[in-house]
Amino acid sequence: MRAVIRRDKQLVCDEIEALTPAAGQTLVKTLACGICGSDLHALHHMEHMIETSARANGGMTNGFVPSDDTVFGHEFCAEVLDHGPGGGRFKPGTRVVSIPATLTATGVEMLGFSNRLPGGFAEQMLLTEAMLLEVPNGLPTDQAALTEPFAVGAHAVAKARLDKDSVCLVLGCGPVGLSVIAGLKALGHGPVIAADFSPRRRAAAEMMGADVVVDPATESPHKRWEGFGVPVTGAAQRMARMMGGSFGRPVVFECVGAPGVLQGLIEASPAGSQIVVAGVCMESDKIEPSIAITKEIELTFVFGYTPEEFGQTLHNLAEGVIDVSRLVTGKVPLDGVAQAFRDLGDPEAHVKILVEPNS
Amino acid sequence: MRAVIRRDKQLVCDEIEALTPAAGQTLVKTLACGICGSDLHALHHMEHMIETSARANGGMTNGFVPSDDTVFGHEFCAEVLDHGPGGGRFKPGTRVVSIPATLTATGVEMLGFSNRLPGGFAEQMLLTEAMLLEVPNGLPTDQAALTEPFAVGAHAVAKARLDKDSVCLVLGCGPVGLSVIAGLKALGHGPVIAADFSPRRRAAAEMMGADVVVDPATESPHKRWEGFGVPVTGAAQRMARMMGGSFGRPVVFECVGAPGVLQGLIEASPAGSQIVVAGVCMESDKIEPSIAITKEIELTFVFGYTPEEFGQTLHNLAEGVIDVSRLVTGKVPLDGVAQAFRDLGDPEAHVKILVEPNS
Repeated sequence: MRAVIRRDKQLVCDEIEALTPAAGQTLVKTLACGICGSDLHALHHMEHMIETSARANGGMTNGFVPSDDTVFGHEFCAEVLDHGPGGGRFKPGTRVVSIPATLTATGVEMLGFSNRLPGGFAEQMLLTEAMLLEVPNGLPTDQAALTEPFAVGAHAVAKARLDKDSVCLVLGCGPVGLSVIAGLKALGHGPVIAADFSPRRRAAAEMMGADVVVDPATESPHKRWEGFGVPVTGAAQRMARMMGGSFGRPVVFECVGAPGVLQGLIEASPAGSQIVVAGVCMESDKIEPSIAITKEIELTFVFGYTPEEFGQTLHNLAEGVIDVSRLVTGKVPLDGVAQAFRDLGDPEAHVKILVEPNS
Repeated sequence: MRAVIRRDKQLVCDEIEALTPAAGQTLVKTLACGICGSDLHALHHMEHMIETSARANGGMTNGFVPSDDTVFGHEFCAEVLDHGPGGGRFKPGTRVVSIPATLTATGVEMLGFSNRLPGGFAEQMLLTEAMLLEVPNGLPTDQAALTEPFAVGAHAVAKARLDKDSVCLVLGCGPVGLSVIAGLKALGHGPVIAADFSPRRRAAAEMMGADVVVDPATESPHKRWEGFGVPVTGAAQRMARMMGGSFGRPVVFECVGAPGVLQGLIEASPAGSQIVVAGVCMESDKIEPSIAITKEIELTFVFGYTPEEFGQTLHNLAEGVIDVSRLVTGKVPLDGVAQAFRDLGDPEAHVKILVEPNS
């Protein structure tokens, strides 16, 4: 079958070996699979990613050799073709989504970051039957494929310790920031201030329900805290409490992932802020602990999601709690993937591109 | 009256102006005042400390000019001499402690970091009457003077999100680390692993109730996690939960405050750890966010304490919940303070030195 393969830091279309489902596995036809920011990064820097993951005892080290052929793609919606010995719950033709991980005898294969099993930039995949979730009737395939990236936002929001009256700032409105905004609004939180330099991303943030959208080039998003009644300095907070006032804990979501952003947030965020770090900065970064201490800042680094958050996100998409109907801005067949990776370098060009391996 | 003054980055004994209590203030005679690590740092680097505090909108910037004369000392026990117009609750001769802050018409003066009011390295001080706490009968003055540094530990522990079965690691057993160990044991938490290169500090950690005391020169304290049933990698934790296991959240207290320690802890701590940062690193520091993200580490920077934590700590000292009877290793009069600052440079020489300005 055909797939897009990462080979020598290039994306090439080629034939790969056909897949046969073992007991407990389901063979699926990939209907749509999103291109993730981590794919863009991994194209050139996967060796460094895997080395970092290994140092952190992360999950991407199950015999994975980053310099060997890899088929990316972990944000997918697929159609059941066949089950391994013992069968499965879903009839052929059923549309399903799943956490991008397949159980094998040698451990868990992370789909999209495996040499042994292809991710969603291939015509077919092997999934673990027990982890399949049926796409609820009526949810379009394109939107079901967004379950995975939006589960990331649901997880970041779950890790935030939000008060009922917390004001939130989302810094960076790429796919991670958008999913955080959606996760906040799905739970009824707000006001949500969103900031991004890109007009297209700011428009998407508004679409996802951000209450205030700011261009940091013309205005610091941190100017907005006080307008929502958040005293920003420790002294102002003590004074407010002394006078019987109350205010929710300020929560900032770092969804940029570039060096320097964290220290900028430590300096600019209100005292007592929780900064949920969802943007993945792959480089070494400098912070000044004494500033973070004086302000009693909390840095909560988050990663991935739980199966429950994944399932809840699918439900939220299907029920219209989260509306992602206008986020897909491009669709490409396998031989369009390399160009799509280049196109995604420009934030004005696209929000989300889906790969349709069988189109 | 006499005091030890920081002048031109030296400590000199000199006369300063006599104090007169205003309405709401109490004039006290300083009985004992501990020398804090922040005093040692401030002797040479107060200008940088204040600049940092100002950038963080901290509390040390109420007209304070660090290059002007300052009388240090914020860990004190004192005796009531006189009240300002309107009187006060306590008779002359009553022993009291207080949060080291005095209200004035121009704002709060941080005692020990003020040009206008002396801290505890002076024969007398002006305190705010409403904030005085009487030393419960029988608690020796030396131990009452330790209320402030032990409130720091109580606060750090209050900011930790400990499960009933959490295993804790305290890195660094200087006064901050010791107060954290005491705060943990006062609430019945444990096991507590404590680590320090200094034999004297390790002995003090044992005295405060640490369950395991490790010399990092001969053994990584992180080797002990698994011995207490903590799966250290994300994969091991998922496996443990899959098999119906449960374990408390690992919590690490960073009580060293030197560059590089934070990244070392991010790398060595179990996945999912909360690292409570109580050691004050005054320099810029490097971290690798991608490791912290993969492991879902939380960095909780903490500072100071609440009035309730201060009062509870005094109670714990008086009731013997926290036993600090053997921590004071030296006492000096005012003209011995400069030498005491030098002596505290060697962790083997002392745990805590008290200044007795009237002896």
